[in-house]
Amino acid sequence: MPEKILIVGGVALGPKAASRCKRLSPDADVTIVDENNYISYGGCGIPYYVSGEVNALDDLRATPYQTVRDPEFFRVMKGIVVRNNTRALSIDRAAKTLLVKDLVGGREENLPYDKLALATGARARIPPVEGCGLDNILALTSLEAADAVRKACQEGKVSGAVIVGGGFIGLEAAVALADMWGVRVSIVEMAPQILPGALSPSLARMAVHDCEKHGVDVFTSEKVVRFTGEGSAVSGVVTDKRRLEAQLVILAAGFIPNTALAEAAGLDLTAFGAIVTDERLRTSDPAIYAGGDCAAVKNIITGDMGYLPLGSMANRQGRVIGTNLAGGSDTFPGYVGSWALKLFDLSFCGVGLTVGVARKAGFDALSVGAAQLDRAHFYPQKDMMHLELVVDKTTGRVLGLQGAGAAGDALKARIDAVAGVLQYAKPTTADISNLEVCYAPPFASAMDIVNTVANVADNVLAKRVIPVTGEKFIEMWNNRSDNNVFFIDVRPARAALDAQSRQPDWHAIPLEELAARIGEIPKDRPVALICNTGLRSYDSVLLLARHGVTDVVNAMGGMQAVTGMGFSL
Amino acid sequence: MPEKILIVGGVALGPKAASRCKRLSPDADVTIVDENNYISYGGCGIPYYVSGEVNALDDLRATPYQTVRDPEFFRVMKGIVVRNNTRALSIDRAAKTLLVKDLVGGREENLPYDKLALATGARARIPPVEGCGLDNILALTSLEAADAVRKACQEGKVSGAVIVGGGFIGLEAAVALADMWGVRVSIVEMAPQILPGALSPSLARMAVHDCEKHGVDVFTSEKVVRFTGEGSAVSGVVTDKRRLEAQLVILAAGFIPNTALAEAAGLDLTAFGAIVTDERLRTSDPAIYAGGDCAAVKNIITGDMGYLPLGSMANRQGRVIGTNLAGGSDTFPGYVGSWALKLFDLSFCGVGLTVGVARKAGFDALSVGAAQLDRAHFYPQKDMMHLELVVDKTTGRVLGLQGAGAAGDALKARIDAVAGVLQYAKPTTADISNLEVCYAPPFASAMDIVNTVANVADNVLAKRVIPVTGEKFIEMWNNRSDNNVFFIDVRPARAALDAQSRQPDWHAIPLEELAARIGEIPKDRPVALICNTGLRSYDSVLLLARHGVTDVVNAMGGMQAVTGMGFSL
Repeated sequence: MPEKILIVGGVALGPKAASRCKRLSPDADVTIVDENNYISYGGCGIPYYVSGEVNALDDLRATPYQTVRDPEFFRVMKGIVVRNNTRALSIDRAAKTLLVKDLVGGREENLPYDKLALATGARARIPPVEGCGLDNILALTSLEAADAVRKACQEGKVSGAVIVGGGFIGLEAAVALADMWGVRVSIVEMAPQILPGALSPSLARMAVHDCEKHGVDVFTSEKVVRFTGEGSAVSGVVTDKRRLEAQLVILAAGFIPNTALAEAAGLDLTAFGAIVTDERLRTSDPAIYAGGDCAAVKNIITGDMGYLPLGSMANRQGRVIGTNLAGGSDTFPGYVGSWALKLFDLSFCGVGLTVGVARKAGFDALSVGAAQLDRAHFYPQKDMMHLELVVDKTTGRVLGLQGAGAAGDALKARIDAVAGVLQYAKPTTADISNLEVCYAPPFASAMDIVNTVANVADNVLAKRVIPVTGEKFIEMWNNRSDNNVFFIDVRPARAALDAQSRQPDWHAIPLEELAARIGEIPKDRPVALICNTGLRSYDSVLLLARHGVTDVVNAMGGMQAVTGMGFSL
Repeated sequence: MPEKILIVGGVALGPKAASRCKRLSPDADVTIVDENNYISYGGCGIPYYVSGEVNALDDLRATPYQTVRDPEFFRVMKGIVVRNNTRALSIDRAAKTLLVKDLVGGREENLPYDKLALATGARARIPPVEGCGLDNILALTSLEAADAVRKACQEGKVSGAVIVGGGFIGLEAAVALADMWGVRVSIVEMAPQILPGALSPSLARMAVHDCEKHGVDVFTSEKVVRFTGEGSAVSGVVTDKRRLEAQLVILAAGFIPNTALAEAAGLDLTAFGAIVTDERLRTSDPAIYAGGDCAAVKNIITGDMGYLPLGSMANRQGRVIGTNLAGGSDTFPGYVGSWALKLFDLSFCGVGLTVGVARKAGFDALSVGAAQLDRAHFYPQKDMMHLELVVDKTTGRVLGLQGAGAAGDALKARIDAVAGVLQYAKPTTADISNLEVCYAPPFASAMDIVNTVANVADNVLAKRVIPVTGEKFIEMWNNRSDNNVFFIDVRPARAALDAQSRQPDWHAIPLEELAARIGEIPKDRPVALICNTGLRSYDSVLLLARHGVTDVVNAMGGMQAVTGMGFSL
């Protein structure tokens, strides 16, 4: 008798696990059950379908060779049975059967299994407020919803849209609507910043600035109170601070793992409601595997069970589960939490913990920023890049790296290099100082920014310099009448004098003149230094120290960082 | 008494070490000695000055903020003494003095030191053939040479140029001359391929194809026999196979470390003539440090002392040496050998060992290739990427990764991710299968090519598929009248039938039809399968195996790989 393999869930992990299992074990009897009509589509591509960059819905369902991955494709090409429009109702673990219901014909049936894999995914969190059942309030979690949004835009029915939640999906949706359809978009985020948990407040502020430059309003620390309608359709969003006109609302306030099936079967769940898995991606029942957006996975950096619903992880886990369904013994090492996001002019990437998350996890963490060109400064095509390294103050251990830059692939290269290390070592700042990445002038500086940011961290940990984030620097400047800080711009004279001419509290003393003009610096006031990227001002800190001026902070990332956040004089 | 620190060599490592030392130890008496006039320039930028992409020579000498790094800059801004035009003649290790000669005034002088650092760099290898002293035969190792080459091109004096050596510098020079000045360029390389030691023969062939498409001739397995002249200037290059007209010859046949000073002082050198250093970058005399292009460093993958003359390594080593000169205790971990090269339409990057180098180092190595789009296949902007993973057959250990692609930064991201791992672990194919890199559709596929190539390697090691390189596939096709191989193109019908219509030996049997048409495949002939990238043909291998057809090889990287090498039907 061939082994009976059942997989619940037909997107990303499910088809991957089924295909891998069938390749290794051609005789296995592999069935995928999914309650939806469409299966095996690229859910991550939905924002690009909404924007029109992806032309047809079928492009999200196709292989790279334009074959649509429907049930027939799986039957003919892979020897896999797909039962779509079929809901899994319950698992009988003792009998090893899965009760399913055909949603078209209505028939229920018990399917026996030797091994079962749960790839039930996640659903959008719906804010429990009045009016959330109105038409045109939807989550971008299905092809049908994607189609509805695009059609509404195409037909010119949407002049204003509100996105509830400033996470990855919310921001991708904002770009799709504003950039391509010219819709007036507002993002409402409950947390004090967008991308909480993914970016520092400083980098998040750069993301906000990029949004605002392109006509997207961002409202943080703000809560949706109710949705208002005209007839059956939404017409506005009321928050605790304002009313926003909207013919379309996208719900992007996070995901809830779909675990009703697992929970009813008595499988272990984490406190945050995802299915517990071991290294082989087995649940608490060794005949049942789970992965993707319904399951918890070990965070390699904290060692705790965590949750990262990303299509890439689902695919890698799918291969591991497929191998194990076929009788192999593959393991999944956990995750370090790498991600990428393309906004308008800027891209953002990160790996590991932000300083906020690290502190919550019990680390004595600090984040250190640097700004630098993404390739040799003499090379004609180049852009500014910003990186923030998160380190444990006590041990110097590197816990994460996040960044922003116009050249997204170049930013990804820096983050991926550190992601590779974080998966196999517990690096310190010295390790990242010496991290070897591909170098030639069209790709990097001889001293790459990834090395530079670790060098800065090393100098901060050694107390050679006291850094302030761009966000904090702006706050200090805005409160200058209270805090008595003396601000010095140590850039070459031209840039610094220009700024000084507009703001008399802004003192232009270029590094070159700093020693000679040391008398101009009041001994009884704290000093804040800024230059273009933070390097000149670091040399200035050292120079001032030699002259006995030590109550000095240095603006990390310099003018590049603060202007990237929208600051101007 | 402040410590006396002497540094011989004023480019890359020297100034970096001096600056770092002075920052940590402001009282130290730091002097840089260099026999040239220009110091602290970006030598890696020379090809981009030759091409005109870098406007002025001073751009290579400037900081990112356009301050020229001349001796005065180091004196005023850093408190470092620079004695340029000053040659270091000999070291008296017992007396701890360095004898130097002022090349302008002619005066000799003994400079005392507490610590000495050697950053004497390397010089171009000059082929010992007749005529190599003619004018306009030069190496791109100085700003003066760069200026001479650019002037000659600007003045229209160069219609043909020959580059001796198909390594990094030779290829960068070829791009500069052909792309920007429209010079007829020929590269002459002794080895059977360009970039030997850096790329596999298959990837090198893609590089050749990119060169040839842009009018650069590449002659491999070919040796320069003599240079011919008209008057004092070169007019031609005679090889063992042909005569090439040339008003300009660039010597790019490798580097020789400058170690005369170290050798005369009795410091240990490696068999290949570089200065031996320890983890702290000390030579065999603990008061003398060495780094950059004159020194050997540990190769992390082989564990042996190796040599990698790259500006990026020199800069990182400079910081370590600077810390140690200042009394600290920093270490340099060695290198994994990452590099990047931008040609015309394609970029190339690599890390670790090629399959050839790995075999020479004693590994039972194999290289496995994959071709895949560099981002989600439904995303509108995307390019094909090629990766080759080098693995040890016995252990599955990953020894290197090399690749080619149109999007250079995206390629660098994949190589850097693996470079990070190689520096801190001995990864296996399973580790790279599960390597977590930043994902979103504008940046990567959900199953990234770096994971895919490891998956392919895993399948090869498990003997699920027998791969052939693109190069080998082309050879098999060209020898088809002898080897009796039956070639099957399993791409979707349209592409495959089009190829078959031109070549009757090319059999179009799409994967979809393979089972039904199994009878068309002769049982007594070896079979070679090809598709677009290698994935469909892998499924075809498995399908054929189920039907008892097992003498089958699969073309890695598929049509994408072989057409990238210039193959057409």
